Amino acid sequence: MLEDRLKAVIRDIPDFPQPGIVFKDITPVLKDQQLSAAIVDELATRLQGMVIDAIAGVESRGFLFGMMLANKLGIPFIPIRKQGKLPAKTISESYKLEYGQATIEVHQDAFAPGSRILIHDDLLATGGTVVAASKLIEKLEGVVVGYAFIISLDFLHSSGRLTRFSDNIIALARYA
Amino acid sequence: MLEDRLKAVIRDIPDFPQPGIVFKDITPVLKDQQLSAAIVDELATRLQGMVIDAIAGVESRGFLFGMMLANKLGIPFIPIRKQGKLPAKTISESYKLEYGQATIEVHQDAFAPGSRILIHDDLLATGGTVVAASKLIEKLEGVVVGYAFIISLDFLHSSGRLTRFSDNIIALARYA
Repeated sequence: MLEDRLKAVIRDIPDFPQPGIVFKDITPVLKDQQLSAAIVDELATRLQGMVIDAIAGVESRGFLFGMMLANKLGIPFIPIRKQGKLPAKTISESYKLEYGQATIEVHQDAFAPGSRILIHDDLLATGGTVVAASKLIEKLEGVVVGYAFIISLDFLHSSGRLTRFSDNIIALARYA
Repeated sequence: MLEDRLKAVIRDIPDFPQPGIVFKDITPVLKDQQLSAAIVDELATRLQGMVIDAIAGVESRGFLFGMMLANKLGIPFIPIRKQGKLPAKTISESYKLEYGQATIEVHQDAFAPGSRILIHDDLLATGGTVVAASKLIEKLEGVVVGYAFIISLDFLHSSGRLTRFSDNIIALARYA
């Protein structure tokens, strides 16, 4: 089963990025391109039947599988980036971190109004970044049709923050 | 021809990231996944016959096509990231920017000594980042077997900085 294969490869790094946090490291997954392809195949399978106009992926790790998924589905990839990184006209959204805040941006011309957008990131933790990403999509009159993650830290109970945008939350490796 | 198709889609953004610089924006390429797939196919074709053990891609834009290329070739993808982003033990390399400096890192266990590594980034400009990336590879006793870029700003004459590591420099859209 893919979830077991993933959990066997994803590596726990204690005390990163700060003491007391156990970080889920996906770099061993990137070394295994058969497994990486299986991730994209499984996401595509679970998305079958949905009408999706584009995949929006969150910098930086969301670029890795987000771009491959967009390619697999034959639909545009929209990069959501940290402040100051996208060169054309952008809109931005700030959100709180444990200490301080972060701002993400998307190009104003990233997609046409009414487009159905699936948001991808490698990992769902507190959900702050993807909530901000969802607000960006809605500001541009896009429709958030769902979320696709490789990993969900279910014990943080963040999916409730996403359901106001979409109930369709896919995660391949869930940690209860 | 792929180069013409790319140049028709890559967009010039004047005065980004600072006045006087014309930035080559690849986000329109990401909207066209047929073109994106053609990029990966062309890179794979040009790399045929080479023995490559892994693709190292530089954060963040180097993740987009670097991961797809690794997947196409069926070999590991190694993320090279900005300081403080990789969770396990890293080695780091600093390099000068026009103002200030930057530091990039790679995991110490990213590959075995003697591995033949192709370095990928979306764009070759001054070459500072990929020179630093090359030094990281060599510090871990890897062999830099070449470079693959989507875009090369040939008018900056940076490829000479790379040839001390490898003469094998591929770029799909060259600006003379």
